[in-house]
Amino acid sequence: MYIILVYDIGEKRVGKMLKLCRKYLNWIQNSVFEGEISEVKLTELKLKAMKIMDPDSDSLIIFKTRQEKWLDKEIIGVERSDIDNFI
Amino acid sequence: MYIILVYDIGEKRVGKMLKLCRKYLNWIQNSVFEGEISEVKLTELKLKAMKIMDPDSDSLIIFKTRQEKWLDKEIIGVERSDIDNFI
Repeated sequence: MYIILVYDIGEKRVGKMLKLCRKYLNWIQNSVFEGEISEVKLTELKLKAMKIMDPDSDSLIIFKTRQEKWLDKEIIGVERSDIDNFI
Repeated sequence: MYIILVYDIGEKRVGKMLKLCRKYLNWIQNSVFEGEISEVKLTELKLKAMKIMDPDSDSLIIFKTRQEKWLDKEIIGVERSDIDNFI
């Protein structure tokens, strides 16, 4: 499945969270990631994220879609992307 | 159409951007919004956003899907939402 992941995490934990998410997904903006991921890998990512997060103040939202083609992406302004590193 | 909008905007401009996006969409996290919007209203929103943004440093990403049912949303941790205000 294809997912978009966005987090809002306290400054102290944000570095760990960034590192974790980049292992599973492509980084596309400050706290936004996207990518194709299996159900098993997503569960793994969520469990690891929950260990980093403070449940009383941090937030993680995951949008899932079965097919990437159901989502159109438009970027305005600066484009920051991990994918740039592979070109 | 249903959209998810995420921005990464310089501190000086973030207040204006938040105010603008809340006029058109539901706020669901720090810099993340979602909602049903028409093509015309989205174009209006983008034009207004571009006037606020610094194109050399700010970023705005819009994910569009024709049907909300094609997107599943999962929230982990704290849920911040404009919708709370309407209940």
